[in-house]
Amino acid sequence: MTKPKFEPAHHILSGETADVYFVRTQEILRKEGLADTVVTMEVFPEREGILCGMNEVLDLLATVLPETGEVWALPEGEPMSAKEVVLRITAPYSSFGLYETAMLGILAHESGWATAARRCVEAAGDIPVISFGARHVHPDVSARMEYAAIVGGCITCATTAAAKLAGKSPAGTIPHAMILIFGDTVKATEAFDRHMPPELPRIALVDTFKDEAEESLRVAKALGRKLWGVRLDTPPERGRVTPDLVKEVRARLDQAGYDYVKIFVSGGVTPERIRQFAEAGAPVDGYGIGSAISSASPIDFTADLKVVAGKPVAKRGRIPGITPNPRLKKVELRRQS
Amino acid sequence: MTKPKFEPAHHILSGETADVYFVRTQEILRKEGLADTVVTMEVFPEREGILCGMNEVLDLLATVLPETGEVWALPEGEPMSAKEVVLRITAPYSSFGLYETAMLGILAHESGWATAARRCVEAAGDIPVISFGARHVHPDVSARMEYAAIVGGCITCATTAAAKLAGKSPAGTIPHAMILIFGDTVKATEAFDRHMPPELPRIALVDTFKDEAEESLRVAKALGRKLWGVRLDTPPERGRVTPDLVKEVRARLDQAGYDYVKIFVSGGVTPERIRQFAEAGAPVDGYGIGSAISSASPIDFTADLKVVAGKPVAKRGRIPGITPNPRLKKVELRRQS
Amino acid sequence: MTKPKFEPAHHILSGETADVYFVRTQEILRKEGLADTVVTMEVFPEREGILCGMNEVLDLLATVLPETGEVWALPEGEPMSAKEVVLRITAPYSSFGLYETAMLGILAHESGWATAARRCVEAAGDIPVISFGARHVHPDVSARMEYAAIVGGCITCATTAAAKLAGKSPAGTIPHAMILIFGDTVKATEAFDRHMPPELPRIALVDTFKDEAEESLRVAKALGRKLWGVRLDTPPERGRVTPDLVKEVRARLDQAGYDYVKIFVSGGVTPERIRQFAEAGAPVDGYGIGSAISSASPIDFTADLKVVAGKPVAKRGRIPGITPNPRLKKVELRRQS
Amino acid sequence: MTKPKFEPAHHILSGETADVYFVRTQEILRKEGLADTVVTMEVFPEREGILCGMNEVLDLLATVLPETGEVWALPEGEPMSAKEVVLRITAPYSSFGLYETAMLGILAHESGWATAARRCVEAAGDIPVISFGARHVHPDVSARMEYAAIVGGCITCATTAAAKLAGKSPAGTIPHAMILIFGDTVKATEAFDRHMPPELPRIALVDTFKDEAEESLRVAKALGRKLWGVRLDTPPERGRVTPDLVKEVRARLDQAGYDYVKIFVSGGVTPERIRQFAEAGAPVDGYGIGSAISSASPIDFTADLKVVAGKPVAKRGRIPGITPNPRLKKVELRRQS
Amino acid sequence: MTKPKFEPAHHILSGETADVYFVRTQEILRKEGLADTVVTMEVFPEREGILCGMNEVLDLLATVLPETGEVWALPEGEPMSAKEVVLRITAPYSSFGLYETAMLGILAHESGWATAARRCVEAAGDIPVISFGARHVHPDVSARMEYAAIVGGCITCATTAAAKLAGKSPAGTIPHAMILIFGDTVKATEAFDRHMPPELPRIALVDTFKDEAEESLRVAKALGRKLWGVRLDTPPERGRVTPDLVKEVRARLDQAGYDYVKIFVSGGVTPERIRQFAEAGAPVDGYGIGSAISSASPIDFTADLKVVAGKPVAKRGRIPGITPNPRLKKVELRRQS
Amino acid sequence: MTKPKFEPAHHILSGETADVYFVRTQEILRKEGLADTVVTMEVFPEREGILCGMNEVLDLLATVLPETGEVWALPEGEPMSAKEVVLRITAPYSSFGLYETAMLGILAHESGWATAARRCVEAAGDIPVISFGARHVHPDVSARMEYAAIVGGCITCATTAAAKLAGKSPAGTIPHAMILIFGDTVKATEAFDRHMPPELPRIALVDTFKDEAEESLRVAKALGRKLWGVRLDTPPERGRVTPDLVKEVRARLDQAGYDYVKIFVSGGVTPERIRQFAEAGAPVDGYGIGSAISSASPIDFTADLKVVAGKPVAKRGRIPGITPNPRLKKVELRRQS
Repeated sequence: MTKPKFEPAHHILSGETADVYFVRTQEILRKEGLADTVVTMEVFPEREGILCGMNEVLDLLATVLPETGEVWALPEGEPMSAKEVVLRITAPYSSFGLYETAMLGILAHESGWATAARRCVEAAGDIPVISFGARHVHPDVSARMEYAAIVGGCITCATTAAAKLAGKSPAGTIPHAMILIFGDTVKATEAFDRHMPPELPRIALVDTFKDEAEESLRVAKALGRKLWGVRLDTPPERGRVTPDLVKEVRARLDQAGYDYVKIFVSGGVTPERIRQFAEAGAPVDGYGIGSAISSASPIDFTADLKVVAGKPVAKRGRIPGITPNPRLKKVELRRQS
Repeated sequence: MTKPKFEPAHHILSGETADVYFVRTQEILRKEGLADTVVTMEVFPEREGILCGMNEVLDLLATVLPETGEVWALPEGEPMSAKEVVLRITAPYSSFGLYETAMLGILAHESGWATAARRCVEAAGDIPVISFGARHVHPDVSARMEYAAIVGGCITCATTAAAKLAGKSPAGTIPHAMILIFGDTVKATEAFDRHMPPELPRIALVDTFKDEAEESLRVAKALGRKLWGVRLDTPPERGRVTPDLVKEVRARLDQAGYDYVKIFVSGGVTPERIRQFAEAGAPVDGYGIGSAISSASPIDFTADLKVVAGKPVAKRGRIPGITPNPRLKKVELRRQS
Repeated sequence: MTKPKFEPAHHILSGETADVYFVRTQEILRKEGLADTVVTMEVFPEREGILCGMNEVLDLLATVLPETGEVWALPEGEPMSAKEVVLRITAPYSSFGLYETAMLGILAHESGWATAARRCVEAAGDIPVISFGARHVHPDVSARMEYAAIVGGCITCATTAAAKLAGKSPAGTIPHAMILIFGDTVKATEAFDRHMPPELPRIALVDTFKDEAEESLRVAKALGRKLWGVRLDTPPERGRVTPDLVKEVRARLDQAGYDYVKIFVSGGVTPERIRQFAEAGAPVDGYGIGSAISSASPIDFTADLKVVAGKPVAKRGRIPGITPNPRLKKVELRRQS
Repeated sequence: MTKPKFEPAHHILSGETADVYFVRTQEILRKEGLADTVVTMEVFPEREGILCGMNEVLDLLATVLPETGEVWALPEGEPMSAKEVVLRITAPYSSFGLYETAMLGILAHESGWATAARRCVEAAGDIPVISFGARHVHPDVSARMEYAAIVGGCITCATTAAAKLAGKSPAGTIPHAMILIFGDTVKATEAFDRHMPPELPRIALVDTFKDEAEESLRVAKALGRKLWGVRLDTPPERGRVTPDLVKEVRARLDQAGYDYVKIFVSGGVTPERIRQFAEAGAPVDGYGIGSAISSASPIDFTADLKVVAGKPVAKRGRIPGITPNPRLKKVELRRQS
Repeated sequence: MTKPKFEPAHHILSGETADVYFVRTQEILRKEGLADTVVTMEVFPEREGILCGMNEVLDLLATVLPETGEVWALPEGEPMSAKEVVLRITAPYSSFGLYETAMLGILAHESGWATAARRCVEAAGDIPVISFGARHVHPDVSARMEYAAIVGGCITCATTAAAKLAGKSPAGTIPHAMILIFGDTVKATEAFDRHMPPELPRIALVDTFKDEAEESLRVAKALGRKLWGVRLDTPPERGRVTPDLVKEVRARLDQAGYDYVKIFVSGGVTPERIRQFAEAGAPVDGYGIGSAISSASPIDFTADLKVVAGKPVAKRGRIPGITPNPRLKKVELRRQS
Repeated sequence: MTKPKFEPAHHILSGETADVYFVRTQEILRKEGLADTVVTMEVFPEREGILCGMNEVLDLLATVLPETGEVWALPEGEPMSAKEVVLRITAPYSSFGLYETAMLGILAHESGWATAARRCVEAAGDIPVISFGARHVHPDVSARMEYAAIVGGCITCATTAAAKLAGKSPAGTIPHAMILIFGDTVKATEAFDRHMPPELPRIALVDTFKDEAEESLRVAKALGRKLWGVRLDTPPERGRVTPDLVKEVRARLDQAGYDYVKIFVSGGVTPERIRQFAEAGAPVDGYGIGSAISSASPIDFTADLKVVAGKPVAKRGRIPGITPNPRLKKVELRRQS
């Protein structure tokens, strides 16, 4: 994945989305002549996971820190332990104190998604996983969610914006809505085949009108060698996709000579269910995952001042001074040209 | 709360944040001459909760639907049951099909937060609750999160952007960082008092350097009648705020003549802990809540086509045709002038 | 239900299926001159349930007891408590001691089945339940099992022998095997309709080749008013029959004008699942129940001598003498003519 | 164990105990000219266990299949996995379709018992186990139950009919009833000794009137070297037989010079309790097991048509065609001469 | 129960059994001229229970406090809530500070036992309970334990010292050791009858050599009307006393004309088992309870200084000053004459 | 630890604290001429643990047994299994039968405490543990409790009497009461330092008025090199001592140059919490343990006569005669000179 460039939004730089007490603190410190006190802040997560959002935070710091500011960080996508320091900033407090809310929020939300994606990807082993969950998050962050899913190990995602951010092609099949408008799965798939560029893989969604096994054979017969795969997305009212269903569809496709047609599974897929598919030996060729990634809770991050004007400090409950962490690397910020 | 106006973002209207298969579907249907098929779509949540995001969705529909389009909806902030239809749209598919991802994501994320806020507010009864969790979500949605928290019952929130959206004043005390820079809680609180407008309440954060009971008495003595309250935010390393701590601080303040000083509790507050405070009779005057609201999972929503060209349809597992729900009201969309 | 006549089998009367120590006991007592000691035996179950097998036991006693023998019993089909005496016999030990094994076995096995049937019937309330479980028990007792199921409340059963025993008509639909031989559900159902007497209800089995909803509509269309009902028997590999499936099939049948077609549910049905159907409001018209009745464990019964030659006795752990039970009635045995 | 010959009962051959829809299917297929379609049926269990009843099923098939019929099977007494095919029949459907209910019932009931017996025998290790549970099943199947227990590993059983079927001698001690008639355990045991052939082992039941330890010493003194063993069958009201009781009786017998007297344990014995005896080092010489074997649930078996007229088929949820299982052996049926 | 007089032991008055830091504190305060500071100390339990040991504490305070000392207390045997103040002392610290360890220990240990006794007595309802647990505690406190058991509601106890303390007659039957020396229960009971004063009730222990039912009848026959009762104390190796055993012994005694003989139950009796006896309707006439009372954990008590030299104080975590408790009564100490 | 001498109390030797039936038994046996029957008694615990109290029991036996008496025992402080014989006495019954209650009580109570102490000491590994629980037990046994704690592995205890018994110096810091009287932790610690002999370690209790970290630095500054350590005893209302608190206090002390000051932890310490401190790597230098040792339940012991007049006997449930145990050693009693 290429390293995307994150442009800090105006609502961040203006402090509008900062907790208001940081806004007030800037003013008070300035009036008290303390605004330029050089401080060291450390940031750590509450629980273990996959670090994500660091690139966006560093691009924000590149915008606001003076040349004298120094930053140490763990790289995007790294595993992190509970309470491990992942970011350390030494700079005048006035240059970055206002952005504490934004920095923590970016790390919290994106690490939450990346960590959930990693759990799915680990469960799936060699089988590719695609993020399909944009519909569970606000569209203002859906690209960030899908980007984080890819940092966590998904091979791609479903929205154009996110795919662009991560340097991927977006993936998708055919929605139920289109099949319902056509009134027949085969007709809808044939229309897709007629109008879409040949490099897009033809993946038929086979649970809309008929039993999945029957429908799979119908589309396979209709599209022949042009059919790349079928997507099983059985609704909960019909018992979701089961390992036995995958095995049976595979067997019926093979018996009819369509052994090249792949089987893609979606619908309430979780790491636990992925493991059940694996244990049962179900021949899945790919997973589409929605809320198991997109509905993941954020991972809380905390920021602590640990040095003020050269003196180790800490609030009660924390240890004053810099926390040693050999994994942290000094960062060369990508300054705005 | 006044009803805010939500301006649909370009990345939504452009389809960039739509699942790519909806983009492709629009093209295919157009080429097949089916784009203007009039359809009815219904939207329902997977589990019960407080509906939020509907205002934003309706403002989006007001932008995209033709005059002939018809919409029925449940109002913002209403409780909804699992699988209850909360939105029904009848219009040409091409006018709104592309926005399914965005509409579902708005409802999912905001309803998740509003529902979590409601749980906190219900537990707190008459005691006011403020949303403090912007630091756990991406700044691009933090205003939406705090808006949803207020829809769920919080009296206000901590960021300027969100407060503006909800027509409130943002609330805040003093961050640990400022106290650490001053090196003393009393000095920091006095500086706040010197420089902030008199209408802002003086609330001292009392766990930074000393035991909370001792520090409360020190700031009370220093600010006298100007002190509105103290905030207890004891870190987990010191056992969090407990009911006994609140009772003791209250007793020591009262014994010293500061019975007018209020006690505000924050730090890992959850509905369960609020109930423990209530059962123990702890005299709390307000709660600040972070991740119990902001880290809530989205509530998944599903959209189904139920009528196509006047004919009841449904995918397997759903019942064809319109689902009766007497709670739905026909909506007069706020068209763009 | 008419009261059937049970003819004791030769292997019972001969003692071949008695525990061998009873055979030996008869010989020893005879040689010691004690064979004709008059004794009172009491029989009680280990746990509560529905008493079944008593009619068969009484017909056995009618065959073997002398005129002087006296019998008190609870009637067939009555609920019984744990340890409640359900049968009391006073007669020369030699006349019936040999049949202890047989009598206990008849009561144990049949009461186990009747009790399980009652649990299903109670869960189903007004909805009729049919016993379909002959395939889980040895054919030498399958008629007894189905008879017991009817004593427990089933309206009928699937085998001719059992139905005859209970004075009912056997019930059945169409086996998967026949549909597989015809290769199509509609063709098989039409053949059934062609050759079976008109008084047999036409019930189509609709899960063999296609999705149940689709197949239901096909057979309804083919048979029209002649179709009495459909049977949903979805295999576990397809998620079993769910409440949502029943509702959807009902809705689709109704929307197409087949509101007279009944829905019959089978496949792993248990009292617990019946309650889930009821709670979900699924419009089921009948249940077919297999192993939830036929695989029920027997209810252990114990026989104790309580009076020997007029003297109250009991083995350690039991109370000597007759156990008062006002529910017991003196029985007029149906002597062989 | 010699291989017994099972004569198919009239009620099986006549179809009376078949599910009635199989009877009707025969008639319909005949009228449609499809009765002689050659099919392949496969039979598999729902859960793992010990296969039993196969000999009886094969004897049934030997009676009904034409010369052209072919059968593959797993042998009686083999362990089988869940869903493993244990029987495959290729023949005209009309020759055996009617017997599906009977074949499945035989396998289900007998495999249930054999599997339960195997659990007991495995727990007991080198200590012999005898089946004593005829009193918990209907006398029409008690011989089958005990036969299955022996297939599962019991060394013998208690009824004459079953022992004959399995080529064993039936085992038994003295019933409580006989001791109660004699009024004294020693007198009853002496009478047994007087009248029974010398080759029958003298095993005294020692819990009827007195504490087991005391009674054991009394009968040991009375019978001297002729006493083979004592049976401990303590009722639940007296705490059942415990490991400590066995140890104490052993110690008291040994201290009094009766170290040759064996200790046989019965009464609610289960695999779990057997393991407790073993862990506690209780010197048990044999177990008598009733309901832990005889009250075992049947193991459901399913029969599927997998080939019809040479074409692989399967109902929804199953994979068409023959299921490979290298453990299956082609069977030479024992045709009726 | 008369109010016993507790004489403070030398090891208490000397401070030998005080935590040594109290000894040192006395010296330091004296040298600093602070020894006679008047303080108020409050004492409260960690959990709810029955207060016991207060009489002993008050007798200690009567010995050490000056005339000016004032004491408020809850009375012996009262129920107390968790954290409820049960004792308040206002006096010069030097007069009683040294005895904090002793006072807390007395209350902790005795309240623990009294509370456990109360649980048993409540479970038993109208049936009398006797404390039999001296053998589980050190003889230096066994009288205190039994005294506390009586405060908790036992009607008497088994040791002379404790009975004297509580103004009761000690209760006892016959130990197993004596029966073993006599070699026969009847002989031992007859010897007891011969040599013990007629006012002592004759209670036979009936589980030593024979089954309890048999032995009960033997002693009843031997002693006739002189037998007051039998004690069932079945060892765990024989399944403990069960409700069924009590019922059977009762029935056999009644059938033999000994309906006046009472049944006393002991051996591992707990409140839970008492409730099981009651639910089963077992006709128990008395319970002997050992470790369910004597092995109870102490209830921790804490002592806090709340006023020092007229000023409300408290350590962190407690509320300064006197805790209102209207249940406390001013105590008139029984001064040593 | 030197072996202390235990003087049997008058209330033991007189039989006052014996269960009264032993007193009566002595009289009856004497009158029947059986008092001098030589018997063997064995004593065993109900559950595994650390044996304690044996020295005291042997000193009692040394006082009462005649020269001919023989005793085998396991040594004080040894681990013992459930039901393992730990003591065997052969002597005339009249010489020791009366002391069964006392002997069992001594072993039960002391072994209970020693076993609980061992669990703490094992959890603590190399970190020393001190018994601080005298306040939870009656002062008449507090020395025995603390002695048992030392037998179980504690390095010393808090009361003078117990320390003397075990040949140790008692340990203690400064009570909260003294600090409250001084009104300041530093002043109280300085007074301690002024008046106590220099060999007593100065350990400041640092949770009375201020946060522990702040107070630790204040006393360290005041006493300098004379400060041996600080004791953290945070009350439950402030969250108890946590691993993080220990780490922070350690870090703050080290940063300020007080790395020689040790950290001692008390307050609700249990084996489980000790393990949590160890797993978290908290640098604890010593634990003070109260109720986790002192509130331990006694371990029930049982005494059985196993030989009477040379004949193996046992009550029902036990095995007659001597129980082999190669770990038992013949004891040379320390006769009174």
